[in-house]
Amino acid sequence: MNAPKFISSPQNALIRQVMLLQEKSRERKKQGLFGLEGRRELALALKADYELESVMYDPGIISKEDTLALLKESSNQPELIEVSHGVYKKLAYRDSTEGLIAVLKTKTHTLEGLALKDENALVLVAESPEKPGNIGALLRTADAANVDAVLIANPKGDLYNPNVIRSSIGCVFTSCIGIGSTAEIITFLKEHRIQIYCAALSASKEYTQTDFTKASAIVVGTESTGLSQEWLEASTQNIIIPMEGEIDSMNVSVSAAILIFEAKRQRSA
Amino acid sequence: MNAPKFISSPQNALIRQVMLLQEKSRERKKQGLFGLEGRRELALALKADYELESVMYDPGIISKEDTLALLKESSNQPELIEVSHGVYKKLAYRDSTEGLIAVLKTKTHTLEGLALKDENALVLVAESPEKPGNIGALLRTADAANVDAVLIANPKGDLYNPNVIRSSIGCVFTSCIGIGSTAEIITFLKEHRIQIYCAALSASKEYTQTDFTKASAIVVGTESTGLSQEWLEASTQNIIIPMEGEIDSMNVSVSAAILIFEAKRQRSA
Repeated sequence: MNAPKFISSPQNALIRQVMLLQEKSRERKKQGLFGLEGRRELALALKADYELESVMYDPGIISKEDTLALLKESSNQPELIEVSHGVYKKLAYRDSTEGLIAVLKTKTHTLEGLALKDENALVLVAESPEKPGNIGALLRTADAANVDAVLIANPKGDLYNPNVIRSSIGCVFTSCIGIGSTAEIITFLKEHRIQIYCAALSASKEYTQTDFTKASAIVVGTESTGLSQEWLEASTQNIIIPMEGEIDSMNVSVSAAILIFEAKRQRSA
Repeated sequence: MNAPKFISSPQNALIRQVMLLQEKSRERKKQGLFGLEGRRELALALKADYELESVMYDPGIISKEDTLALLKESSNQPELIEVSHGVYKKLAYRDSTEGLIAVLKTKTHTLEGLALKDENALVLVAESPEKPGNIGALLRTADAANVDAVLIANPKGDLYNPNVIRSSIGCVFTSCIGIGSTAEIITFLKEHRIQIYCAALSASKEYTQTDFTKASAIVVGTESTGLSQEWLEASTQNIIIPMEGEIDSMNVSVSAAILIFEAKRQRSA
């Protein structure tokens, strides 16, 4: 590999492009690229066959050798760029000091491309999840429970938001993720003969009394408005976590985890 | 009630005091007071017998009559202060437009004052929880599960942090909360003959194979370092949620909820 390019000006066109990718969902979609911080996250993305475009490193924090060692898992050879500490600090979204930022190609996450691992699939569906932190927590739960897929219906943002990547601690790369409209996901579930269990307040059965041992999708909506009518009409059975408090409103990622792990418990019993 | 005082200067001594209460844990402790936003949160605090010092309202957002109606549940008569919109915007911590900020007396949350509701108590213990958002989510779960108490060991911040109040959506006022050192809480649990189930990776039994039907405390540590040795030595039985993913790290409030709701399931079975 030749000596890497060196950039010390935050006004450099490439640096400005990376900043736009970090900040704007629209840019990520337009360019089909996203920015990524962190060594662990980079390793997970490469393991999941994401394609690298370029890697910027701050030699005051990470050496060229260590950077190259991390890139060994890459299927292609990205452009390697040394940046000044001033430029790195401009680019770095987090307070971390890992010293590298990568630009990678996004994936499309179509339902057609989704290969379910198991006949008896366990799938987590989230309709229009709003907060990046909630999406990250859902993906962490999905990883720990090793669900067959996470399906996101009518998303409000994109998966490559730096806050989703950060709060998922990289689980955005370990989960099998499909994205589509609510109608598309309902069709997909029906085609695969997956029972649809909608977390809802009305006409609901207690979740512990519901049988999740067959192919099952657990579907959660937003904390503010719950699931759309479309989901409720497609529901095999609405389910509820009985609550006994004064407020009775749990975080959506907490509710999803309780439901998913009850399904796991039943399947291993 | 006489005509309320009117404040239009953000430099006013009272306004500066309220801003300090919103920003600094040290000030809240020193003054024994905290600031509170939101109508629903205020109603919950009054229901829990918190004592009001003063209430500031922005008449452009909420009328004096509506403010007084909210204060009907108060056991004492607080000072009522009308503030200009500029002052309100300075005080308001959130992007909400509910138009009122109250100052209330903090409670102490000693273990001595804690009356357990039930012989067969179910208690959630968190050691040194770090993020206000996690404490808020733990308190929401505690409310929904109607646990007998939430005990916080060696806290790193205080309960009246505006981000704890906000993320708990007021559950900080609905839960029975005790605060103490790890040693104090272990003594308390042993005195009450409550079994101690520590979420830990070593010498652990699967949580679904553990009997939580007797008086039980479910104890969780931080995501980064887990529980301290002190807890592990006092543990009746370490418990684990089996994970099958690549990362295997769930959010602490998610793990706590899975454990608490498994205990609830066993108790209602």
